[in-house]
Amino acid sequence: MKKINLNDKFSLFDEHWSPKILTELNNQYVKIAKVNGEFVWHAHADEDELFFVVKGRLLIDVKDHETIDLGVGEMTVIPKKTQHRPYTQDGIETWIMLIEPKTTRHTGEVQNHLTNNEEKFI
Amino acid sequence: MKKINLNDKFSLFDEHWSPKILTELNNQYVKIAKVNGEFVWHAHADEDELFFVVKGRLLIDVKDHETIDLGVGEMTVIPKKTQHRPYTQDGIETWIMLIEPKTTRHTGEVQNHLTNNEEKFI
Repeated sequence: MKKINLNDKFSLFDEHWSPKILTELNNQYVKIAKVNGEFVWHAHADEDELFFVVKGRLLIDVKDHETIDLGVGEMTVIPKKTQHRPYTQDGIETWIMLIEPKTTRHTGEVQNHLTNNEEKFI
Repeated sequence: MKKINLNDKFSLFDEHWSPKILTELNNQYVKIAKVNGEFVWHAHADEDELFFVVKGRLLIDVKDHETIDLGVGEMTVIPKKTQHRPYTQDGIETWIMLIEPKTTRHTGEVQNHLTNNEEKFI
């Protein structure tokens, strides 16, 4: 059992759209990422995904749904099979925490220059 | 898909040691609770449990392990079967977020005056 300090972990990396694994429980991973700009449209076939904003502002376009606009201390769950595209606006670097099954692939079935299916613990 | 604001949700209740369910994903619940004083020693037979401190300070005594001392922005995972007792010190009301399977019973196999196995969405 270890104690995990969110700010300490965020201080360890700078790259965007590259989630780091903080811990696992019940076959889920808790991850953090720094993001800026636009990610790719994708869906996860069997995995619900929680987004929680630690710093900044995250927008998530969702197919057939209004855009979700998350500020600090706000979260949403994107259900499995739901096409979504996270992004930021105005160059605001945003820090997020994610909860999703260990089986989750970064960009679902899509392959993109941002795709990273070799996520590591931090 | 809804947006959940942590502070808004915490403003809706005052009672201690009575988790409220914010959302669910992948058969897990995300819950919040206000706590103050001592909880009961207990374990969850099949469920890992994540504690994240939003406000205040949470201590967790763990059997055969040193006490875990969590400040704001810190988290830990208590593995299944692990006897643990969360508490606060010095009358500091503490706000926590929990992630645990939907099957999790509040005080494990223990029944106590604090036990609440009828947790509700908020």
